[in-house]
Amino acid sequence: MNIPAKGFAAFNEKDPLGPFDFSRRDLRADDVLIDITHCGVCHSDIHHAKADWPGSKYPMVPGHEIVGRVRAVGQGVTTFKAGDLVGVGCMVDACGACASCKKDLEQYCVQGATMTYNGTDRIDHTNTYGGYSTCVVVKDRFVLRVPDSLDIEKTAPLLCAGITTYSPLKHWGVGPGTRVGVVGLGGLGHMGIKFASAMGAHVTLLTRSPHKAEDAKRFGAHEILVTTQSDAFAKHARSFDFILDTVPYAHDVNPYVGLLDVNGTLTLVGYLGPLEPGVNSVSLIMGRKAVAGSVIGGITQTQEMLDFCGKHNITCDVEVIAMDKINEAYERMLRSDVKYRFVIDMNSLK
Amino acid sequence: MNIPAKGFAAFNEKDPLGPFDFSRRDLRADDVLIDITHCGVCHSDIHHAKADWPGSKYPMVPGHEIVGRVRAVGQGVTTFKAGDLVGVGCMVDACGACASCKKDLEQYCVQGATMTYNGTDRIDHTNTYGGYSTCVVVKDRFVLRVPDSLDIEKTAPLLCAGITTYSPLKHWGVGPGTRVGVVGLGGLGHMGIKFASAMGAHVTLLTRSPHKAEDAKRFGAHEILVTTQSDAFAKHARSFDFILDTVPYAHDVNPYVGLLDVNGTLTLVGYLGPLEPGVNSVSLIMGRKAVAGSVIGGITQTQEMLDFCGKHNITCDVEVIAMDKINEAYERMLRSDVKYRFVIDMNSLK
Repeated sequence: MNIPAKGFAAFNEKDPLGPFDFSRRDLRADDVLIDITHCGVCHSDIHHAKADWPGSKYPMVPGHEIVGRVRAVGQGVTTFKAGDLVGVGCMVDACGACASCKKDLEQYCVQGATMTYNGTDRIDHTNTYGGYSTCVVVKDRFVLRVPDSLDIEKTAPLLCAGITTYSPLKHWGVGPGTRVGVVGLGGLGHMGIKFASAMGAHVTLLTRSPHKAEDAKRFGAHEILVTTQSDAFAKHARSFDFILDTVPYAHDVNPYVGLLDVNGTLTLVGYLGPLEPGVNSVSLIMGRKAVAGSVIGGITQTQEMLDFCGKHNITCDVEVIAMDKINEAYERMLRSDVKYRFVIDMNSLK
Repeated sequence: MNIPAKGFAAFNEKDPLGPFDFSRRDLRADDVLIDITHCGVCHSDIHHAKADWPGSKYPMVPGHEIVGRVRAVGQGVTTFKAGDLVGVGCMVDACGACASCKKDLEQYCVQGATMTYNGTDRIDHTNTYGGYSTCVVVKDRFVLRVPDSLDIEKTAPLLCAGITTYSPLKHWGVGPGTRVGVVGLGGLGHMGIKFASAMGAHVTLLTRSPHKAEDAKRFGAHEILVTTQSDAFAKHARSFDFILDTVPYAHDVNPYVGLLDVNGTLTLVGYLGPLEPGVNSVSLIMGRKAVAGSVIGGITQTQEMLDFCGKHNITCDVEVIAMDKINEAYERMLRSDVKYRFVIDMNSLK
């Protein structure tokens, strides 16, 4: 443990995040040392830092939307070299042997993938520290190539917000002709629109906020459905093949299920908890519909997503902040006041 | 309206069913007149007769699991002739023009399919009367061929209980190697086991009743999971690819969702109503799982199912009753006291 690192950490569930000096492990044979240039700020960072979910360990260095340049590699690494532009997402390891891992679905590793922060390293059992820091050491299998053509500060959130939306769109076969609805226009929703549009689908933003129409169209949405209008749900019944529900809090999904056509699927990616009021099975049964969920994506698919972004010039819309503005950023995120993702410029830490 | 018919009808939501003389329409060019030999008794017959669901119209002649022999055909009918062994299921017509109908999914007709009983004929707007009767007149497109090799009294329930379970198993790709769980061993469940087993899947009955093990194995189940055992759900977590949930009343589906492996789907075919307690999205999201629904099947697939039954010698396990025992049969069904479907012998009406 002797590669010095500076970061920002949560020291408990109540206080603001503050500076934290620590060290990264010496490189193992398959490790890559990355100088972090930018790190996106995901809503789950707040949940972990504030202990909204069980299992928070302090000090905690959040951040799992990491981009940077390789500083050095372990002796066994052949796929990366110093200077490469790379990314790290939500996972830094997995068992590699279970049915999910063998199908390149490390996010569903039976033993549980090793999370980029607030996780436990599979070898030395130390806590993992995330991307709110100057550097990180990650096993090569979990390091992604970032296309050089993309604007780097806008690519960081692809590593979580990007793959979280790309993966279900691909899994449920979205392509030319698919009628896709995206519920919510935040960090996830705006990427969902960009991807679905680039995949050739007909994309509609479902939102309670009419003022989001302009941005949604700029991202590629063909239509906006303002769901507070009294006839919105009745008028558009059975008109979607796939709905990506990015809403991060408890909400009634039944009206959205009603918007699905026969064989349609609504996939939740934002809200973790019981679906109440309960999904009415009448709507599922009478249209062979499904309510599903999805989390990030495997490493192979994350690389595919980054390559797709390189090809279609897709990045996130971001607000770049200095590291010491993170607590203000959290407050603004809790008010949904961000367009559409905060990204920390790590030069601000030096 | 001058083909005489005898039947049994519900005259209101409270009283027992009793004899009812009525007539069937004269044959239109595309009609088939069928002398009914047997009619299965579906749980939904009780719901309709007792007005548990909205829309009951009296007098009501229930019955949508009909088999019989063709007595005569309309002048334009070329696919059936007198003497043919045929069946009629839950639908006798549909719009034929919507996206669902064009995909052979008449059960999801945008305008609503015409139900075999308690429906409204699309041409003369009269109420439709079902299979608790000596004969029925049905449009040729909605008449199915029943393989002659099958024991006819055991085939009637294939027209509803059969297709209701066959269709989702096919739609969700059940085949050799698929790990299928069937929840509940009633009219639907016992057919689900027979079909999934014949499709080559590894089939487990999930039941609260250990005494059902012997029958389940006879139907083709490879394993029985008694869900009242305290460790049943934990021990078998992530061990099913597809779960067919045939339970006809409100129940907590969360434990069953926990039994699904990554990418698994639980499909409801028995219970219509809100899923409470609410499905927890954590389980859906952390395993890319889905909760879905399905109702009967299209006409083309219903014929495919009957042909599959002919090939694999699959029929229902039934108790044959006389027409005047229908009210006792309803009472026994409400106590789940039937192995596994009542079938009315229509000779008893003459």
